[in-house]
Amino acid sequence: MNTAKMDEIIEEVETGVSISHRAKAMQASPIRKLASIAEARKKKGIKVYHLNIGQPDLHTPDAVFEAIRGLDLPTIAYAPSNGLPQALTAWKNYFAHHSIQLDEKEIIITTGGSEAIIFALCAVCDTDDEVIVFEPFYTNYNGFASIANVRLRPVKLSISNGFHLPSLEEIERHVTSKTKAILICNPNNPTGTVYSREEVQRLVTLCQRHNLFLLSDEVYREFAYNTRATSVMDFPEIRDRSILLDSCSKRFNVCGARIGAIASHNEEVMQATFKFGMARLSVASIEQLALVPLLNSPEQYTQPIVEEFHRRRDAVCEGLKKIPGVTSYIPEGAFYIVIGLPVRDADHFSRWLIEEFEDKKETVLLAPANGFYATPNSGTNEVRLAFMLNVPDLQRSLEILRRALETYKN
Amino acid sequence: MNTAKMDEIIEEVETGVSISHRAKAMQASPIRKLASIAEARKKKGIKVYHLNIGQPDLHTPDAVFEAIRGLDLPTIAYAPSNGLPQALTAWKNYFAHHSIQLDEKEIIITTGGSEAIIFALCAVCDTDDEVIVFEPFYTNYNGFASIANVRLRPVKLSISNGFHLPSLEEIERHVTSKTKAILICNPNNPTGTVYSREEVQRLVTLCQRHNLFLLSDEVYREFAYNTRATSVMDFPEIRDRSILLDSCSKRFNVCGARIGAIASHNEEVMQATFKFGMARLSVASIEQLALVPLLNSPEQYTQPIVEEFHRRRDAVCEGLKKIPGVTSYIPEGAFYIVIGLPVRDADHFSRWLIEEFEDKKETVLLAPANGFYATPNSGTNEVRLAFMLNVPDLQRSLEILRRALETYKN
Repeated sequence: MNTAKMDEIIEEVETGVSISHRAKAMQASPIRKLASIAEARKKKGIKVYHLNIGQPDLHTPDAVFEAIRGLDLPTIAYAPSNGLPQALTAWKNYFAHHSIQLDEKEIIITTGGSEAIIFALCAVCDTDDEVIVFEPFYTNYNGFASIANVRLRPVKLSISNGFHLPSLEEIERHVTSKTKAILICNPNNPTGTVYSREEVQRLVTLCQRHNLFLLSDEVYREFAYNTRATSVMDFPEIRDRSILLDSCSKRFNVCGARIGAIASHNEEVMQATFKFGMARLSVASIEQLALVPLLNSPEQYTQPIVEEFHRRRDAVCEGLKKIPGVTSYIPEGAFYIVIGLPVRDADHFSRWLIEEFEDKKETVLLAPANGFYATPNSGTNEVRLAFMLNVPDLQRSLEILRRALETYKN
Repeated sequence: MNTAKMDEIIEEVETGVSISHRAKAMQASPIRKLASIAEARKKKGIKVYHLNIGQPDLHTPDAVFEAIRGLDLPTIAYAPSNGLPQALTAWKNYFAHHSIQLDEKEIIITTGGSEAIIFALCAVCDTDDEVIVFEPFYTNYNGFASIANVRLRPVKLSISNGFHLPSLEEIERHVTSKTKAILICNPNNPTGTVYSREEVQRLVTLCQRHNLFLLSDEVYREFAYNTRATSVMDFPEIRDRSILLDSCSKRFNVCGARIGAIASHNEEVMQATFKFGMARLSVASIEQLALVPLLNSPEQYTQPIVEEFHRRRDAVCEGLKKIPGVTSYIPEGAFYIVIGLPVRDADHFSRWLIEEFEDKKETVLLAPANGFYATPNSGTNEVRLAFMLNVPDLQRSLEILRRALETYKN
């Protein structure tokens, strides 16, 4: 044993202090894991097209800044733990605009959709209880499950049907005595899939049959192209079992504002959530107020954003057709797609692409999709694309991807 | 069995869905539990002096609003998960101002001190691991422990020595094989106690001896009257074991901004915290930026606030001397005190005080202290007072309290 190794061991014995297993087990973000390589590459003069991340590139509506500049508060005081009254009314109005009828007392404003999901998991699950998810799934669900000490039990979807849900029987096979809920994201991140009413109905039936909650992350609600996204609130038969998770981030281009909401007709769930809310006191007051005008009349703000992403979605689908060997489908919503690449290891390819490849001093950053699966060795030839660039840049990115795949094969 | 009862049972069988045990077990806030009675009383024309809650009544410094109005961002985008670079530098500068030397990479900005504590608990504890706290303690620690699925193991303090720490041996009796950390709040909420360097040294020794982390909630750092609050960062011998938890809320009167921080020299802890941070994406960008000028030169903003609370602390101590039978001490910091009342049940007295008593159409809202204890039947004759009123109102509140105690006895 060499001295350095021994020193390391002695150091460890002396220190001895250790972080938790859950912290060690926690996965780093697959979306950001190649980001530092991208930064290094940029320093070498290579332009990088970011297809890896869901950070919207569009401007935040002026109404938000006007609201902020117009605030006249003597003190930035704690808001009530469920939310400021005028903000709760604005959320109620927003939901009503989408034919979702909720009282203010059935809504709690949260620090982004993230906190809404953590509260929901804590409200319905104890340690090691299980929640059914569909993989590939939004990778941060892993982080929320770690924080809440809950097990995610993934049901595998397939690119062959555009990542739509499997049969009721197939999903039912994953229900155990520990299962407390099903968690969906609809429209979906990372696949862009919009589940039909019939698909969600399968989950509703399962929730009734096995006494489960249905947690529905609907932050991409408006991003459903030529279709309407079904809400968990569309099913009165599970009025007591449905928990709606929401966020302003994407629809109003205010990701950094961290304003979300959790809503349910189940009084016990809302009381529990309120207690979790009291523990963290309140959500940032300024952003709660800044978004009131947008929530009160959402469509004028969301429509131009959704139209732009519709154009981008179409451009990506067109561009993908031109790349030989790529497996793809039409994502009905959101602004992501998971595609299959004609390579054995998409992780290796993505790293090579950002680290070594260039076409006219330009390259592309992708998010390898294996990080969006919980089951080992899944999605190994898949990547997620996020449509956070304008149409010409998206077209150029896909051209670079096409050329890179040609070079990589040789 | 009557029909209504049967319907209820059938309803339950049909619904069957149930929230988690941790949600059911979670305590409602003892600070706010009499608030609805107070509101009802106000509607009857009774003026209520709120001594129950730590919502500062002073104005937020203009610099915060100037910073907000001066923001020129095209998009409110996600901040980096650890914080915006200029905000991290401002926190570093703030800490340096208090002789705490930290690099930017040793700091992560959080959604209030609340999130800092949740992240710290998740980083160092797994389910059912234990954390030693000193009771009475900040009641929201219960909520954070519920969310993180961690057990708080309380060491009882006594009003007889102003809630200072017991001997090392007494604390050591509470260490078990499950203990992972000691969590202190210094200066203390709810007692106002400032632990001396020698007291914190006892905890440092215990952490070394039993391989524990020392988590120190120092959000009241500046509120130490005629003394200096000892920081966990003052002890290089536990450089790897110390985790600092902080918040701008009180010192800058920006409770509703929800800006806090977690800091540690332990790289593994910071990496774990960063992963939890990535899961919730980011902290509100506007508030991170709005507080930069204050963090960069804190004293001009904190000094007038601290001076005002010093005057209030003195006024409360003077006023309490005039109330026969009250047990009290000089709180060295923060803006709270836990006092013993000459009654058998302070909960009953507090409820009676807000529900029935009046003196010239005025009464007082208190926070019964039993809610600040985890051990059953503790602090039953104690209440917490928060100094959130100006000196004349505090004096008047204590006069009302004196008269109420006289009436209650008869």
